[in-house]
Amino acid sequence: MIFETRRRSVLKAVSWRVWATLTTAVIVFAFTGRLTLAITIGLFEVFAKMGLFFIHERFWHRIHYGRKEIPAFVLWFTGLPASGKKALADAVYDELKRQKFKVERIDGMDVRPLFPETGFTPEEVNRHVKRFAHLAAMLEKNGVIVVASLVSPFRESRKFARNLAGNFVEVYLKTTPEACEKRDSKGHYRKARKGEYQNFPGIHVPYEESPEPEICVEVDRVDMPRARKQIVTYLRKNILHVGR
Amino acid sequence: MIFETRRRSVLKAVSWRVWATLTTAVIVFAFTGRLTLAITIGLFEVFAKMGLFFIHERFWHRIHYGRKEIPAFVLWFTGLPASGKKALADAVYDELKRQKFKVERIDGMDVRPLFPETGFTPEEVNRHVKRFAHLAAMLEKNGVIVVASLVSPFRESRKFARNLAGNFVEVYLKTTPEACEKRDSKGHYRKARKGEYQNFPGIHVPYEESPEPEICVEVDRVDMPRARKQIVTYLRKNILHVGR
Repeated sequence: MIFETRRRSVLKAVSWRVWATLTTAVIVFAFTGRLTLAITIGLFEVFAKMGLFFIHERFWHRIHYGRKEIPAFVLWFTGLPASGKKALADAVYDELKRQKFKVERIDGMDVRPLFPETGFTPEEVNRHVKRFAHLAAMLEKNGVIVVASLVSPFRESRKFARNLAGNFVEVYLKTTPEACEKRDSKGHYRKARKGEYQNFPGIHVPYEESPEPEICVEVDRVDMPRARKQIVTYLRKNILHVGR
Repeated sequence: MIFETRRRSVLKAVSWRVWATLTTAVIVFAFTGRLTLAITIGLFEVFAKMGLFFIHERFWHRIHYGRKEIPAFVLWFTGLPASGKKALADAVYDELKRQKFKVERIDGMDVRPLFPETGFTPEEVNRHVKRFAHLAAMLEKNGVIVVASLVSPFRESRKFARNLAGNFVEVYLKTTPEACEKRDSKGHYRKARKGEYQNFPGIHVPYEESPEPEICVEVDRVDMPRARKQIVTYLRKNILHVGR
């Protein structure tokens, strides 16, 4: 909940008074042609109206009419491991933060330590995605924009996340397992091929594309600044275009 | 993020104009003794200043100075099963909601279905409490007041929750297992005595009191309205007394 300090109201009263009194003096002078009278009335007005303005501001501070909250949403980055979800999500998060939006960043891997017994079988992954979706939806419900990134390779649990959220924007990082393996600095794909990991998306388990993600980023064709712009433009057009 | 509609600014301009123009007319009349002049200047001013006020409002809408957020906090209700945590937490939540605070209500039992594999051994309970604490802290960090209730019988995990939060207010419902058993309409204590439950707090596992909870409610001595008032008064005095 936002509130306004008394100091803000005082400052507004002063700043308004400068412009308003100048106008009054000009009007009085225009109608009477008497400069001294215009100035006298102006000076008197300064004090009388400053107090009145302050009271008016404090009165309006209690009125909620016309104060609206920017709609929150869940921006859900999905795609194969090493497709670049984390970096792109970070970039979009930074941009929203810079624009003073209330935004939280959650990544699937950062949340995993909270659920130590969760493995990587399809059932466990679905369960993990659903919990993650609950967290995202609860934040969104409370007016927080959520920038979420996790592989979430299964259509079912992504659909669950979509249904739980108020505004859900799916950002699919479209690429191939081969391209990801080239980018994969941590060697996860190599380990998965050697059998050190099971159920690895892109190797043992296919990524199930959604029929119509809101945003599809062709990661092998566009660079980071362009991809970020594509997403921010979408959000401005479709969600943040708040009726003023 | 809150924003103000143009309509609000128009309405403020009109409401301000009524009072301000009346004052101007009175001032002009006081200085000149000419009623017609006072009314003419007043009428002219109405139009000139209304537009100016609107522009002034829109300008200030962009200025963040003096706009503050009410500090969020985690209000953590702890105590034996059937000590009355849920009902009291609900009452405080309703009161905060009524006062237009941004507040979320989470209860340990409602969150449990999200973690289906969590049982009731001390280790599992501690793990559950810690996850719950993460959720609460993440909401609080984003400006949401959290009214949380769960048995949380162990000092260790309550301390963990306290350290994770920015403002943590522990509300301990002080009572005895015997008094809880009498109140227990669902028969949990009876089942625990019969051995249907293991690790039941108050029967098999002691509740570990904190050395200094912020608020201690003697549930067997005070009624609900008084307990609610005790808590709300504490919050007003210690957290919500925002410097204006």
